[in-house]
Amino acid sequence: MATSPLCVPPPQGLLRPLAVPERLLLGPGPSNVPPRILAAGSQQLLGHMHPEVLQVMDEIKMGIQYAFQTQNRLTLAISGTGHCAMEAALLNLLEHGDTVLVAVNGIWGQRAADITRRLGANVHELLKPPGEYFTLWDIEEGLARHKPSVFFITHGESSTGVLQPLEGLGELCHRHGCLLLVDAVASLGGAPIFMDQQEIDVLYSGSQKVLNTPPGSAPISFSEGAREKMLRRKTKPLSFYLDMGCLGNYWGCDGEPRRYHHTAPINSFFSLREGLAMLAELGLETSWERHRANCAKLCQGLCDLGLELFVKEEKVRLPTVTTVRVPDGYNWKDIVAFLMDNHAIEIAGGLGPSVGQVLRIGLMGCNSTSSNVDRVLSALQDALRCCQHSRL
Amino acid sequence: MATSPLCVPPPQGLLRPLAVPERLLLGPGPSNVPPRILAAGSQQLLGHMHPEVLQVMDEIKMGIQYAFQTQNRLTLAISGTGHCAMEAALLNLLEHGDTVLVAVNGIWGQRAADITRRLGANVHELLKPPGEYFTLWDIEEGLARHKPSVFFITHGESSTGVLQPLEGLGELCHRHGCLLLVDAVASLGGAPIFMDQQEIDVLYSGSQKVLNTPPGSAPISFSEGAREKMLRRKTKPLSFYLDMGCLGNYWGCDGEPRRYHHTAPINSFFSLREGLAMLAELGLETSWERHRANCAKLCQGLCDLGLELFVKEEKVRLPTVTTVRVPDGYNWKDIVAFLMDNHAIEIAGGLGPSVGQVLRIGLMGCNSTSSNVDRVLSALQDALRCCQHSRL
Repeated sequence: MATSPLCVPPPQGLLRPLAVPERLLLGPGPSNVPPRILAAGSQQLLGHMHPEVLQVMDEIKMGIQYAFQTQNRLTLAISGTGHCAMEAALLNLLEHGDTVLVAVNGIWGQRAADITRRLGANVHELLKPPGEYFTLWDIEEGLARHKPSVFFITHGESSTGVLQPLEGLGELCHRHGCLLLVDAVASLGGAPIFMDQQEIDVLYSGSQKVLNTPPGSAPISFSEGAREKMLRRKTKPLSFYLDMGCLGNYWGCDGEPRRYHHTAPINSFFSLREGLAMLAELGLETSWERHRANCAKLCQGLCDLGLELFVKEEKVRLPTVTTVRVPDGYNWKDIVAFLMDNHAIEIAGGLGPSVGQVLRIGLMGCNSTSSNVDRVLSALQDALRCCQHSRL
Repeated sequence: MATSPLCVPPPQGLLRPLAVPERLLLGPGPSNVPPRILAAGSQQLLGHMHPEVLQVMDEIKMGIQYAFQTQNRLTLAISGTGHCAMEAALLNLLEHGDTVLVAVNGIWGQRAADITRRLGANVHELLKPPGEYFTLWDIEEGLARHKPSVFFITHGESSTGVLQPLEGLGELCHRHGCLLLVDAVASLGGAPIFMDQQEIDVLYSGSQKVLNTPPGSAPISFSEGAREKMLRRKTKPLSFYLDMGCLGNYWGCDGEPRRYHHTAPINSFFSLREGLAMLAELGLETSWERHRANCAKLCQGLCDLGLELFVKEEKVRLPTVTTVRVPDGYNWKDIVAFLMDNHAIEIAGGLGPSVGQVLRIGLMGCNSTSSNVDRVLSALQDALRCCQHSRL
C-alpha cells in the first residue's frame, strides 16, 4: 500500500451538493427532456453486451430507421454527441486525397469543411450568404466543376434558421458519381426528410433537439452506396472509436456475431430509445405538422412585435429554429440575458457567421407548443420594453 | 408540408415500455451506479454554456485533479467513453511520422497500438505475455532501442488483472526524451497513482469503473511537457471533436473566454461530478485501502475454492479486477452464464489475449464490499458444483 501523502486535497467545490435550476430551453438545443426520458436514463446500468442492452440497441436502430425513413441496415447511434456523428460520417467515408464539396451557408458547413481538411481530403466550398439556401442549379455547377466523391449539405442550418430543400438532390449527386451526406441534427423530426426516397447516402442527427434526449448519442445511417465506398477503403478509418465496420458489427448490422468494441454510453442509449419511442408513438407526420404550426405562430408573433425575420422565404424557414434580426439599437446580449434572468427562458444569439445579427428561438419536440410560443413572445415583448435603456 | 406517405412504419418494439432488470455488475466494468449518481444524471438539462454547467465542469476538473493527484491546468473530461479518451490522448499528442513505443501485455496495449497506426505514427511494441508486467529494465531497453517520442503503458490491465508498477517510469522516460502516457481506466481510485509525483505526462481514465458513473465521459489530464509538444504541432489534430486546444478553452484551462465548441453530454457531466464528489468525500486513501482489502479477501476465497489466480505476484495484482484461471474441464461460458442466470451477478470471461483462459471478477467503487465478495464466492461455489455436468 502506498503511503505517499496526497499533494492535492479533496476540492471544497465538490463537497457541496449539486444544484440544477429548471429552465425553459428555447435556444437552438439542447431542448428540455420529458420526465419519461429522464427516468429511462436513470435506470440502473447493465453491461454493454447484456441481451437487454443489445435489444435496446435493436430498438434504437428501428427507431432511427423510422425517423430517417430508411431501410438501411447500417443504421445505429454513435457514442458521442451530434458533432461526433459529423466526424464519424466524414472519417469513415473519406480517405486521404478524396475530393469533397461542402455547401457552406452557416456554421455547420464551415465545421464540416474544417473536419474534412483535418482528414487530409481536398475540400472545395460552395458558398452562400447566411440566411440563403442552395438551388439544384448552384449545386450542379459545383459538382460539375469540382467532381467530388462526396457532397456535404446541412438540412437544418440552426445558425441561420434555413431549411435546405433536398428534393432531387440525391439523384443529382448520383448522376455526378457523388455520394450525398446530409446533416439533419437540428431538423430531424421537425421537418420532413425521407432518406431512401431522397437518395441520401449518409444521414446523421443529434439526440438533444426534437428527440428531447440528453446529448451523448447520435443517430446515423449509411446507404448501400456509402457502405460500398467504405468497403473499398485502402486504409483503415483514422478512428477506432468511430470505425463503422466495428460499430456495424457491435450494432448487429452485418449479420455476424456481435463482438465487444467499446463500452457504450448505456444510459444514453436507454434515453435515446425512449426519445425515439415517443416520436414513434406521436407519429412523424404529427410531429412535422406540430413544428410547422408552432413555428408559423411564432413567426407571426415576432412580426407583430415589429421584428424582422432573418429568413425571407417562408418555405425555407427551419421549423425548429427561428431566426430574427436583432432590432436596431438593441444589444442582443441584453435581450438574451433579460429572458434568462427574468423569465428563466433560454434563447440564443447568432453562431459563427450569424453572430451579432440574429436572435435564435428553438421550438423542438416537447418544447414546440402553442403555450411556449406565447411565453417566449410575452417575454420578448417585456425585453424589448425593458432593454431600451441599454440601447447601444 | 410534404405529403409523401411514410415508407417505414413506427416499429412495434419501440411501442413497448423499456424494461431494465437489476443486476450486480461484478465484471470488469461497468460497475453499478449508486442512486445519488443516477439522480444527478436525471436532473433536467441546462444549456452547455450556462454558468451552472460551467461551474459543474470546473468542479469536475478539480475532482479529476484530486483523483489523479495533479495540478495540471489542462485537465478535463472527454465527451465520450474511456476508449474515446485513449484516442484523444494519442491523436492530440501524435503527428504523422512520430515514433511511439507501446507496452503490450493485454488488450489495451494492442488497442493503443491499433489507434496509433491509424494515426500514421511509427509504432513499436514492447511485448510481454498476458499476466506479466514490465520492469524498468524492459522499458529502458525499449526506449534506448526505438527512441520514441511517446511511451504508452497500461496501469490497470483489466484483460489480465495486472497492475503495472509506475515508480521511476516517468523519470526514465524523461531521461530518454520521451513523454509518458498512462491508461488508468480500470485502476483509477482503486490503486494509488500520483500523476505529478510520478511524472506522468498524459493520464486518462473512464467513468464506469471505480467512479461508478454511467459511461459517457472520461477524465484526462496533460502535463506541461505534453502541452508543449501539442503546441509545437505542425498540423491540426485529426479530430475536431477531440481537439485539445478547443476543449481546453471550453473547459476554461487556457485563461481565455470560454467559447462554444460542441454540445457536451451535460447529464453525463452531472453524473461524473457526483462520482468524483463521492470519491472526494470518501478520500483516496480510504478508497485504495478498501479495494486492496476486498481484493485480498476475494483472492483468498478463490484459492480456498481450489481456483488458481492468474497473476502470481500479489504486488502486481490489480485490486479492481481479479483474474482466475478457468478450472480444468470447465467451460468459462457455462460459469459466467450460471452466475448471471441463477444469481443475477455479472462476471466476465477473458478479453483479447486472455480469452478462454480466465474469469474476471471486478470489485469497483461501491461494488468493492466484503458482502459482495461473499456473494460472488458463494455463487462461484454453486457454479463449480452445478456446471460439472457441462465439463468439456
